[in-house]
Amino acid sequence: MTRWVDGLKSAGVAAGIKPSSELDLGLLVADRPVTWAGTFTRNAAAAECVNWNRSVLGRPARALIVNSGNANACTGGGGRIAVEAAAAAVAEAVGCDVEEVLVCSTGPIGVPLDARLIEAALPAAARSLAPEVDGFSRSILTTDTFPKVSTWTSDGASITGVAKGAAMIAPNMATMLAFVGTDAEVPADALQEATDWAVDRSFNRLWLDGCESTNDSVFVLATGRGPELASRELRAGLLRVCSELALKMARDAEGATKLVRINVEGATSEAAAVELGRAVAGSNLWKAAAHGADPNWGRVLAAIGAVDRQLDIQTTSVAIGDELLFDKGEPCGRLGAAAAAMRADEFSVSVTLDRGDGAAEVLTSDLSEEYVTLNAEVTT
Amino acid sequence: MTRWVDGLKSAGVAAGIKPSSELDLGLLVADRPVTWAGTFTRNAAAAECVNWNRSVLGRPARALIVNSGNANACTGGGGRIAVEAAAAAVAEAVGCDVEEVLVCSTGPIGVPLDARLIEAALPAAARSLAPEVDGFSRSILTTDTFPKVSTWTSDGASITGVAKGAAMIAPNMATMLAFVGTDAEVPADALQEATDWAVDRSFNRLWLDGCESTNDSVFVLATGRGPELASRELRAGLLRVCSELALKMARDAEGATKLVRINVEGATSEAAAVELGRAVAGSNLWKAAAHGADPNWGRVLAAIGAVDRQLDIQTTSVAIGDELLFDKGEPCGRLGAAAAAMRADEFSVSVTLDRGDGAAEVLTSDLSEEYVTLNAEVTT
Repeated sequence: MTRWVDGLKSAGVAAGIKPSSELDLGLLVADRPVTWAGTFTRNAAAAECVNWNRSVLGRPARALIVNSGNANACTGGGGRIAVEAAAAAVAEAVGCDVEEVLVCSTGPIGVPLDARLIEAALPAAARSLAPEVDGFSRSILTTDTFPKVSTWTSDGASITGVAKGAAMIAPNMATMLAFVGTDAEVPADALQEATDWAVDRSFNRLWLDGCESTNDSVFVLATGRGPELASRELRAGLLRVCSELALKMARDAEGATKLVRINVEGATSEAAAVELGRAVAGSNLWKAAAHGADPNWGRVLAAIGAVDRQLDIQTTSVAIGDELLFDKGEPCGRLGAAAAAMRADEFSVSVTLDRGDGAAEVLTSDLSEEYVTLNAEVTT
Repeated sequence: MTRWVDGLKSAGVAAGIKPSSELDLGLLVADRPVTWAGTFTRNAAAAECVNWNRSVLGRPARALIVNSGNANACTGGGGRIAVEAAAAAVAEAVGCDVEEVLVCSTGPIGVPLDARLIEAALPAAARSLAPEVDGFSRSILTTDTFPKVSTWTSDGASITGVAKGAAMIAPNMATMLAFVGTDAEVPADALQEATDWAVDRSFNRLWLDGCESTNDSVFVLATGRGPELASRELRAGLLRVCSELALKMARDAEGATKLVRINVEGATSEAAAVELGRAVAGSNLWKAAAHGADPNWGRVLAAIGAVDRQLDIQTTSVAIGDELLFDKGEPCGRLGAAAAAMRADEFSVSVTLDRGDGAAEVLTSDLSEEYVTLNAEVTT
């Protein structure tokens, strides 16, 4: 069973926030105050807990509480009070300052959060803290179908990460949350820099339904119990763990039946390649075609042509799997071979431009009828 | 039966481009060369016929040919040759210069177009030209379920418009095409200016699936048979006709079960209001909720918060129908009343900001399982 790095323990309990009485409250505690880094949603309607975490970024942290039954976003003044109450309850249960507590949530937006449920469940959570990720990794799930865990070790240092799914969370808003611990000794600014770098190349290359959450957050806690880690090694380790977690999110996207890897090469920059990949990942037309294993490469071209107005299709090529279907302005290839590739659980679509060295892979899923059904359910 | 304005005639025939043997070729002919204006897709993967029409913009036009069985987009050198062949065949059938012919198409992308089918069908089309819009309005449809026609008269001048649906066209790409005729006497530059103005406030306020087509085009032909029309009157008439056509497209969006009017007020500018409206219209989450009549206002806030990073939810309000559900930072209202409003064929969602005087209405539809099913069909 996967363990956190030395210095971290966690627990997962059922606090009654989810109507289903499943695990819905996770507690992550460090033996002593640790350095941490975080990246947060850029959504202007960010949840109150996101604002809280931003306000304490830069201080050491001792504990993190996460509930998976209520996003506590757009909940007004009551939402702010609930965050403060949760942080205070954790501080008391763990024995630390309230500003050493990080607070996360995921679930329906706009529903008042009753912080008393968290307060009541905290003693049991604190008592069951253990080095394994198991209970915690299950307590943060919403419509995810499996826990998402990833580990990495190098030169005596370790990284362990746990995440919950991207894509829609029925009945409400998509949220991706990731919690990563390392025992490496890293200064706070280096940790933040490495976190930003790795998140940009992993979670930010995931584009499932284009709906940015109010609660998305990634946390990296460094306990310093292990060796120092060179910046390059730290980046490599974080990227490996974050990429594996992102891949698991894509495979578990709501309603998804396949993973689609969109590879863009020859763009003016890496950022431009990401933007083009997201354009393809954001096309409902293309994603419905992906669902039906229809090698509809024209939808790929139309998607990128809508975001890059300078695109020259005379120097653009599109392949599905290994089959080149559009070669610098001319249709070509065998549609049957491309369709066969698309019938697998995972396939790639490759767009090659002649504009520069920018390249990137963006992960997405297909768009299924089930996705619509799940998100059309009346729950409010 | 609706007629074109004086000076225009049309026909619709079956040329065998659609496998179904339905009407698939429309011909619109002016008695003499007429002034025309056009607006075209901004997609960099624009169809060859769009490039053709752009190249002849500014000259008078005598005829327009449109096929609804093949987009002739991303078809390479063969696509260019097919456009030129179609234009030449029309010029011969009608007796005009090839540069006086406009060419349109809609249907699957990337499929070679056999221009001989158009050449063979043209004599019959030319023979059946008539003042009524009927055959033409049916010949341009793809997955539309009804023809879209609108008329307007004022001070002795008339406008008649015909369009085909927005939203996905199974088995392939969304295309919206609109053909508008007026008998008003208008200089070309004034006609183009009024067309741009009206299109920006009608078709460009339609946001069904966010997938911009390679073939979208609007044409306005002015025969000059009627009176002169003041610029203000011309704008008003074009806006009325284009808005009615856009509304009919929204009602007939693929898989749609309801029309959703997104009203944004208090934005920094009209353009900003349109952008926010499109953000809501582009949210799969919100549109799935609309399908299920779930008054999930949090998805509306999350959608606008993702495009306007400066948004202050403390001064933002959201209503569904007449029910205010989020009032300047605080949830409120009766969800049941909002859900009841959403169960109608048409409902509105209103977003009110406190940033300025910018206001706009954007039309969209819900996202249904049928939309996915239709666009997942393997056809290639």
